[in-house]
Amino acid sequence: MDELSGWVLVVWESFNAVGVLAFALSGALLATQKRMDLVGMAGLAVVTATGGGMARDVLIGATPAAALTDWWMLAVALVGALLVFLLHRWMSRLDTPVLVFDAIGLGIFVVDGASKAMQYDVGPVGAAFVGMLTGIGGGVLRDVLANDVPAVFRRESRLYLLPALIGSSMVAAAVSLGIGSWWLMVLIAVLVCALRIASELLHWRLPAVKTEAIDIIGR
Amino acid sequence: MDELSGWVLVVWESFNAVGVLAFALSGALLATQKRMDLVGMAGLAVVTATGGGMARDVLIGATPAAALTDWWMLAVALVGALLVFLLHRWMSRLDTPVLVFDAIGLGIFVVDGASKAMQYDVGPVGAAFVGMLTGIGGGVLRDVLANDVPAVFRRESRLYLLPALIGSSMVAAAVSLGIGSWWLMVLIAVLVCALRIASELLHWRLPAVKTEAIDIIGR
Amino acid sequence: MDELSGWVLVVWESFNAVGVLAFALSGALLATQKRMDLVGMAGLAVVTATGGGMARDVLIGATPAAALTDWWMLAVALVGALLVFLLHRWMSRLDTPVLVFDAIGLGIFVVDGASKAMQYDVGPVGAAFVGMLTGIGGGVLRDVLANDVPAVFRRESRLYLLPALIGSSMVAAAVSLGIGSWWLMVLIAVLVCALRIASELLHWRLPAVKTEAIDIIGR
Repeated sequence: MDELSGWVLVVWESFNAVGVLAFALSGALLATQKRMDLVGMAGLAVVTATGGGMARDVLIGATPAAALTDWWMLAVALVGALLVFLLHRWMSRLDTPVLVFDAIGLGIFVVDGASKAMQYDVGPVGAAFVGMLTGIGGGVLRDVLANDVPAVFRRESRLYLLPALIGSSMVAAAVSLGIGSWWLMVLIAVLVCALRIASELLHWRLPAVKTEAIDIIGR
Repeated sequence: MDELSGWVLVVWESFNAVGVLAFALSGALLATQKRMDLVGMAGLAVVTATGGGMARDVLIGATPAAALTDWWMLAVALVGALLVFLLHRWMSRLDTPVLVFDAIGLGIFVVDGASKAMQYDVGPVGAAFVGMLTGIGGGVLRDVLANDVPAVFRRESRLYLLPALIGSSMVAAAVSLGIGSWWLMVLIAVLVCALRIASELLHWRLPAVKTEAIDIIGR
Repeated sequence: MDELSGWVLVVWESFNAVGVLAFALSGALLATQKRMDLVGMAGLAVVTATGGGMARDVLIGATPAAALTDWWMLAVALVGALLVFLLHRWMSRLDTPVLVFDAIGLGIFVVDGASKAMQYDVGPVGAAFVGMLTGIGGGVLRDVLANDVPAVFRRESRLYLLPALIGSSMVAAAVSLGIGSWWLMVLIAVLVCALRIASELLHWRLPAVKTEAIDIIGR
């Protein structure tokens, strides 16, 4: 997203911070459900907000990871944990805003992740994978640390990984074709965000295997 | 395995793809047992098939990770997930072939992993560790994401990590001694595969501590 | 810690090895509680002893990871697993020594981790995060592989992450200010160790959210 400049960049980064905060809130809220202490809330908030970006940077070789050098992410994530600690009684009224903020974060993380991966010579397929991982990685780590099956994999979940994958594939294709202008990137982020919110409102779900599957030898 | 050429390389890569497919099948099958949707099946298939190689590349610094640039692995893994989705009713009849394919994959992943690590100056002990991890890492990640204790660590499991470690140690020793010819590598892969299958057929198990152990202070 | 020399370095490295052994013991002990076999004991011992350092090296880009090249860590961790396998009946009498050794390891890992991160241009905030992660990462991985919520996040846990974070922040601040002499590093390690032991003896705990928190939409 180097080509962004002026007020577009300011708006983009502001929404990025809103996304980091929303991811952190979902981490801290899960920590309270899992009966963790303040350290657990801060830990899950940081992991959810920065885990996807860390996985991206480590896999493509963009080290030190951006979350370490751009330390405002750590700060925003800790603010998220503190908000949940102080205001958890009233958080349930914030369900809809948190859902919308989380969807905004997903859109921006996915577009940023796929764009960055394209700069590290992983090819369009690899970049589509990395962009998707940037969006969902933090939530997957959050659920693993909370000892849950990742929400994105669960049968009852709405679409989450798929909007991310569609967006990151579009970014990878656009950059490959040399048409990755900043307004197209913004458009793709808006699309990911819209698909995510629509999936929740319209109760979209993916099919799953119906029968209880058989045992696997060797496990 | 740079020294491989001609038909040996073709056979090696074909068996490699068979191994990737078998790993992906075990991931997708576990996803159905854990009541995941199609995204969960694809996710566990990809993680099982590519997780060991990703862990190897990240630890030795061979980034971007090969699974991102060699995107045929992602494609084969997704085919595996689709096969399980369409054919899960008949998968139980494939138990023995899947076991054999998985053992072939283990042999090739371990030899490839240890060879690659030796090129990154980690020394023979580090390379033996990395080769073993390349073989078992995908399955460990699969089980963690499915919220299970890793199968390779469980008391009732047959030998899996140990054949991998024996094979990777032999590769590391052979390369250190300058006798790492391609036919020796193939021989070691066959040995790992044979040890793995024999462990299943002959019900080999490792000893475990009998009593329920004491609590640990500070946990 | 380049500025250490002579007997200070010898003492430091000896205590480091004691810390690695203590971390390995906690991994192997948890493996026996989780009904794992010998491979599981060795696996959890190695992961607990080296996981924090591996996470540090991968995030800051110091690859190949030090645990691969400094293979004495792997050897000490395997000795720890073997000790638990042979002596688990008498391990309960070692609770206090293991707690003290673990605290020594925490102090040294944290100071080493933060110092190393400062050499990789991550800035003081990133270095404080990495130093803390070096100290707690192995234990977190141990608990994830054993299918537990990480002990450091649990409500009933004593202080563990906080002494680590205080120590790593002090190291990052001292190095940033150009006053990171070896005796100050030793002093900070002693402080981390003392805070950790005091937390256990004096039953220090962190506050947690009291009510069962609400559901999060979108999970």
